[in-house]
Amino acid sequence: MALNLYGLRKLIEYSLSEDIGTGDLTTNSIVPTDAVSTGYIITKEAGVIAGVPVAEMVFRCLNPEARFLTHAGDGEWVEQGRVLMEVHGNARAILTGERLALNFLQRLSGIATRAAQLVKLVGGGKPAIVDTRKTTPGLRVLEKYAVMMGGGHNHRFGLYDAVLIKDNHIKIARGITKAVELARRGSPHTSKIEVEVESLTGVKEALEAGADIIMLDNMTPKLMQEAVALVSGKALVEASGGITEETIRAVAAAGVDLISIGALTHSVKSLDISLDLEEIKTN
Amino acid sequence: MALNLYGLRKLIEYSLSEDIGTGDLTTNSIVPTDAVSTGYIITKEAGVIAGVPVAEMVFRCLNPEARFLTHAGDGEWVEQGRVLMEVHGNARAILTGERLALNFLQRLSGIATRAAQLVKLVGGGKPAIVDTRKTTPGLRVLEKYAVMMGGGHNHRFGLYDAVLIKDNHIKIARGITKAVELARRGSPHTSKIEVEVESLTGVKEALEAGADIIMLDNMTPKLMQEAVALVSGKALVEASGGITEETIRAVAAAGVDLISIGALTHSVKSLDISLDLEEIKTN
Amino acid sequence: MALNLYGLRKLIEYSLSEDIGTGDLTTNSIVPTDAVSTGYIITKEAGVIAGVPVAEMVFRCLNPEARFLTHAGDGEWVEQGRVLMEVHGNARAILTGERLALNFLQRLSGIATRAAQLVKLVGGGKPAIVDTRKTTPGLRVLEKYAVMMGGGHNHRFGLYDAVLIKDNHIKIARGITKAVELARRGSPHTSKIEVEVESLTGVKEALEAGADIIMLDNMTPKLMQEAVALVSGKALVEASGGITEETIRAVAAAGVDLISIGALTHSVKSLDISLDLEEIKTN
Amino acid sequence: MALNLYGLRKLIEYSLSEDIGTGDLTTNSIVPTDAVSTGYIITKEAGVIAGVPVAEMVFRCLNPEARFLTHAGDGEWVEQGRVLMEVHGNARAILTGERLALNFLQRLSGIATRAAQLVKLVGGGKPAIVDTRKTTPGLRVLEKYAVMMGGGHNHRFGLYDAVLIKDNHIKIARGITKAVELARRGSPHTSKIEVEVESLTGVKEALEAGADIIMLDNMTPKLMQEAVALVSGKALVEASGGITEETIRAVAAAGVDLISIGALTHSVKSLDISLDLEEIKTN
Amino acid sequence: MALNLYGLRKLIEYSLSEDIGTGDLTTNSIVPTDAVSTGYIITKEAGVIAGVPVAEMVFRCLNPEARFLTHAGDGEWVEQGRVLMEVHGNARAILTGERLALNFLQRLSGIATRAAQLVKLVGGGKPAIVDTRKTTPGLRVLEKYAVMMGGGHNHRFGLYDAVLIKDNHIKIARGITKAVELARRGSPHTSKIEVEVESLTGVKEALEAGADIIMLDNMTPKLMQEAVALVSGKALVEASGGITEETIRAVAAAGVDLISIGALTHSVKSLDISLDLEEIKTN
Amino acid sequence: MALNLYGLRKLIEYSLSEDIGTGDLTTNSIVPTDAVSTGYIITKEAGVIAGVPVAEMVFRCLNPEARFLTHAGDGEWVEQGRVLMEVHGNARAILTGERLALNFLQRLSGIATRAAQLVKLVGGGKPAIVDTRKTTPGLRVLEKYAVMMGGGHNHRFGLYDAVLIKDNHIKIARGITKAVELARRGSPHTSKIEVEVESLTGVKEALEAGADIIMLDNMTPKLMQEAVALVSGKALVEASGGITEETIRAVAAAGVDLISIGALTHSVKSLDISLDLEEIKTN
Repeated sequence: MALNLYGLRKLIEYSLSEDIGTGDLTTNSIVPTDAVSTGYIITKEAGVIAGVPVAEMVFRCLNPEARFLTHAGDGEWVEQGRVLMEVHGNARAILTGERLALNFLQRLSGIATRAAQLVKLVGGGKPAIVDTRKTTPGLRVLEKYAVMMGGGHNHRFGLYDAVLIKDNHIKIARGITKAVELARRGSPHTSKIEVEVESLTGVKEALEAGADIIMLDNMTPKLMQEAVALVSGKALVEASGGITEETIRAVAAAGVDLISIGALTHSVKSLDISLDLEEIKTN
Repeated sequence: MALNLYGLRKLIEYSLSEDIGTGDLTTNSIVPTDAVSTGYIITKEAGVIAGVPVAEMVFRCLNPEARFLTHAGDGEWVEQGRVLMEVHGNARAILTGERLALNFLQRLSGIATRAAQLVKLVGGGKPAIVDTRKTTPGLRVLEKYAVMMGGGHNHRFGLYDAVLIKDNHIKIARGITKAVELARRGSPHTSKIEVEVESLTGVKEALEAGADIIMLDNMTPKLMQEAVALVSGKALVEASGGITEETIRAVAAAGVDLISIGALTHSVKSLDISLDLEEIKTN
Repeated sequence: MALNLYGLRKLIEYSLSEDIGTGDLTTNSIVPTDAVSTGYIITKEAGVIAGVPVAEMVFRCLNPEARFLTHAGDGEWVEQGRVLMEVHGNARAILTGERLALNFLQRLSGIATRAAQLVKLVGGGKPAIVDTRKTTPGLRVLEKYAVMMGGGHNHRFGLYDAVLIKDNHIKIARGITKAVELARRGSPHTSKIEVEVESLTGVKEALEAGADIIMLDNMTPKLMQEAVALVSGKALVEASGGITEETIRAVAAAGVDLISIGALTHSVKSLDISLDLEEIKTN
Repeated sequence: MALNLYGLRKLIEYSLSEDIGTGDLTTNSIVPTDAVSTGYIITKEAGVIAGVPVAEMVFRCLNPEARFLTHAGDGEWVEQGRVLMEVHGNARAILTGERLALNFLQRLSGIATRAAQLVKLVGGGKPAIVDTRKTTPGLRVLEKYAVMMGGGHNHRFGLYDAVLIKDNHIKIARGITKAVELARRGSPHTSKIEVEVESLTGVKEALEAGADIIMLDNMTPKLMQEAVALVSGKALVEASGGITEETIRAVAAAGVDLISIGALTHSVKSLDISLDLEEIKTN
Repeated sequence: MALNLYGLRKLIEYSLSEDIGTGDLTTNSIVPTDAVSTGYIITKEAGVIAGVPVAEMVFRCLNPEARFLTHAGDGEWVEQGRVLMEVHGNARAILTGERLALNFLQRLSGIATRAAQLVKLVGGGKPAIVDTRKTTPGLRVLEKYAVMMGGGHNHRFGLYDAVLIKDNHIKIARGITKAVELARRGSPHTSKIEVEVESLTGVKEALEAGADIIMLDNMTPKLMQEAVALVSGKALVEASGGITEETIRAVAAAGVDLISIGALTHSVKSLDISLDLEEIKTN
Repeated sequence: MALNLYGLRKLIEYSLSEDIGTGDLTTNSIVPTDAVSTGYIITKEAGVIAGVPVAEMVFRCLNPEARFLTHAGDGEWVEQGRVLMEVHGNARAILTGERLALNFLQRLSGIATRAAQLVKLVGGGKPAIVDTRKTTPGLRVLEKYAVMMGGGHNHRFGLYDAVLIKDNHIKIARGITKAVELARRGSPHTSKIEVEVESLTGVKEALEAGADIIMLDNMTPKLMQEAVALVSGKALVEASGGITEETIRAVAAAGVDLISIGALTHSVKSLDISLDLEEIKTN
């Protein structure tokens, strides 16, 4: 996945106006209009970087002529004290944009770093570590991008691009078979259908109904292993629900194809990153 | 502070469209148009609640006729297993809005809970625990509201509503005195001026320049104590920079008026909250 | 599929402002502010109706208190001269909204009617008649909804909700196998992968690469039959490219699962529908 | 009329986001970020071209540095197989923008071609062939531009830029004379006033009331001729209502100044146009 | 003209957010959420009122359940000390909306009052007093509405709804005749064509070219009189350019149909209006 | 304060679309697409200029390649007949943008000129002349910028960036002391608190409650003098309410720190400025 920068401009402009409002009182009072400088964005702890192009766009919105030198790209593991990028341009733009650029970089790098840790825990290959819809309102595309940068994989992007039949849907349809049938009729033939099940009976019924993906909800690793055997490659198997660093290796060993982790995006620890400003020059 | 619901509608509509896109394939295929039901929003761990009116507005956007019963208001400490609110209305609207309503509630309650813990740590009164501009892009008003609900206090909302002179500004102005003077001339007389200092010399200079608030950046508690003595009530004193649960009591004991904590909003652990759906009725 | 009215409001408001601009000079000059009346929306030729809720929303935007009586719902075949719906309310709102309400109804009913004719031509069951991305810019959700109302089925909604590998992608990837592999890695596991092929060799390669759907581009019905045999249920088979009323039955007879028709939405003949206004009453 | 590109950017960006959503899964997975290529836009049937600058803007939105070679301008009659334009730039941008660029070009060229056919049918000069407000919601300016490119002429752009008094308005005002008087008082002196009439009596009354344009609604060519004689140059005369290719010459012969045709924009047959991609180069 | 409230909502919401931003700190801190009260809007000087429905909409945006009693409608001459309207509802909404509601009312009533004075000066009938495009950016529809409420009349609303050929256009076209011909070809037949002239020769040429309106730019009343005689009813005659209270009667006496006055909207003196709040009640 | 051009683009684009709508009929019909020219913006009366960068942005929105020569900057006093700036570029863009560019320049220069007159009246130093929230809806940032350009100073920008406790708030809180206490608790510690008082008792109570600014509402100069003595530097003192050119020197002599004047922005007399177009060149 590449970052869809095209669609991000509005989000960045909205976030800038959230911070700048009627103007940066401090910077506009103190920094001469035509002062130029260079900002160095530096890691203060090690981790996987995500969001460098977003940070660039923040500065570019405020100063279209700003120039950038990128020393570490998204998806790269970076040690503490590394200069990720340099922004050279109008000093007011650098000071006014600093906080937002860092807010994006720190959060996205935090997500990428966490994803990378989990991917490493399960051995780096199968099962894939996937995200959920428990993302920050407004930031879903960015947060899912950060998961990819950390070596994880994406689940559906919203309610519109795949079917996921949960227990409430099953209750309303009075059974998995009927629910899958209704979903197949009501959604494009290009959509996969995933069914959330809580038992081996559910696995069997979903499989027979033709589910493309079966989500095992809150099962023990042992039960998951049986489910995987039952499915035997006829559908993708996804483990979900309360999986932690402690339990993830056991879940992986059960042979599932995917492990989805809500905490990847709903409980993020930012990566510490800061901006150092070179001495100002006035033209 | 009361939640400014007026300005939130756009954010909620944007977030809904982020999740719903061209339509909820699963729910629209399976749930009859006119089915009604009740959703119960329930805590799965104890904490301070924030965001109930936001969750309500999510459902109201999808179903203006939905009715609500609120059992626990924002700012309240709630035990695990408590029903916070009930939403009664169109079953499709409840299922389609569930994830976004919870995403808001979980994040905001996570922030409120963390704020409450820190407030308790410092004894509940002075110093005030305040937030920073390290908030999630797009969610600043909500996250600052959550801090208030947890008993914390708010710092400035952006670059536009107060002056905060940092080291880069001081370097450019060639001194604190000159920086404060420029800021006073360039900002409304209704704006307070805060100066970030790293030494007692800085404290003195800021005080003489007429700063309204002095931010002690990364000082030891001992140095802070001297700074507080020096200021002796002629300005507010704010401690800032890398303050943790371990160090916060010592900082508080130094006599500062305020302690600002970026992690309150940049590294949030969501509070676990879920929605249970009652059996569906079809008219 | 149900019409996602939630997302439509903006489109309708934009379209209203396109027509009304600074005000309806004629109606505002002539019709008293408080005059009320009833408008009858009547078919002037037979066809399948689509867009009644859209027409309602047009009037409701201008007059939130307007009341409606719906006599024929979306998806219904209706004879000439039938009253589809009545709108009762402010006379200015009815006159000002008339054209836009009809513009939506006529176009969507035109699409639904055409879809219904094609569905009937292939016998009403399999293969499904599906649309394409050759829709009117801005109206995709509505036009795809109209296809459903006519008994057709939807293809993917955009570039984001399924993978469709075309000849240019295959050339760039240097082969179908590699292209499918890249797409699987780069897209959510919830996305289906469709491959467009022009020969039986292509069918075989796509099948072995694990394509979920194989699109037969501009093949003769005879070749399609061989392709269907080759696939033998291991993927969905979609016929595409220049299929007309004359050739559609032969294509259907080849055993494909889906026939996609761009003209369903790119070359629409509107269904003739008009609005009659009852005598005005002034309060 | 020149195409008001300034106002189009929003429409194009909206339409792009309708198609691209969270990203072009196929292209972003398969095509390298820095690949460049050339796309050739080619007619697959003969017709009058309209929309070349719109297609250019689609690609420019995705790739501001794209370069264009235009071989046939808007308003030109072009044979089948002609290269209209070349777009040279980022290969992803060309593939992602292709469908929307063609959707605009095909529809607008379809309208221009149809307008040109009708203009030719009536001899190319007077009466002018004019459009109506039966345009696609959201695309009015573009569709009216296409009519001009085909040699047609534009009617009013909306309810706000001219007065058109129809039968319902006349009923409410209790007569043409009163309606015209109210309209003159209620609209700027810069607005023309058109009256729709169904009989010679109506023509007379409208003329005496000072109408600037008289619309003959659904009259026979013979009656139109009498109406034209009656008006004798004191107002413009417009024929309207159910005029087809079969009847248009007779209507023209009646001496009217303008013939308005709703089908020009409400029932469009797209002109077949496609894009061929040159081999990709990777930097 | 009736006020097109439909299109105003966005302007009002934008203006509210300009004033309220992240929240009304004072009111939200001090006034209980559920307090209700009544606000009385009172004139502090005599004048013609305009903007009552705008003020209502301001309060309704903040408190949809607010109720209103209107004692003086738009267009009415009102003495000092008159209660124009009462708003009853949430006390916070009244206090927060007060300033914006008054800002609209005062400005629009100032314009209406000035228009009424000029209309009275020229005798109340012909010539009509008309506005120009010298309106406040963003408020054109409202300011033109206020002119109507004062008894004035509206000129074109923008560059799009009528042709106005000025000296620069004439220079570029190399003559009035050619300019009118180009404009007629390039604009809808529903648009009137106005020509600005500076001499009797210009008047003659414009008349022969078929101009619908002739604008006499900065002519002496005597020259205007000759121009009116020359035109002798074959076009509307508009006087324009530097006309003041001192000169307006002489201009009117010259027999022109219209006098346009930029100062009506570019140099407004607000009418003094205030809001009195009844004692608060808390539920 | 520097003009926050970043946030202005939307306002300018909105205002352009207000004026241009579906296109400049006159210019587009008459002026060749590729004609270039130079526009000279010239003062027709003396005054202080404000808005030159806004005017530039208007032309740049229509013609991004336009080039500018600025002869007089914002804040400068300029005699009649001075060329302020030259815009060189596409002739259509200059003609189409002319009115909006001038509408901004004339209004903002009118405000700056008036502010400069008042500043001069009070001697040019203390007290500062400050604006209010009685600005034109939508233009607050620009109008406050113009006040600064004229040598005035800004009051708070809205309800969100400072506390201003008025009589209604005091009544609701049952006293100044309680009101100030509630405001301090409910607003960020970075916000100043201003209290409006009508008597010396009020001054005393506000001072004791810790108000940062005390607004003397409608007091006589003599009473103001006593108030100033009472406050004796412990808070800023602002005079407000009905202060005119006649009374302002007496108010200044009373020793207040600030004088706020609503008429600065609610009753503006535009400065007369026009645009002259050089002869057109066609490439």
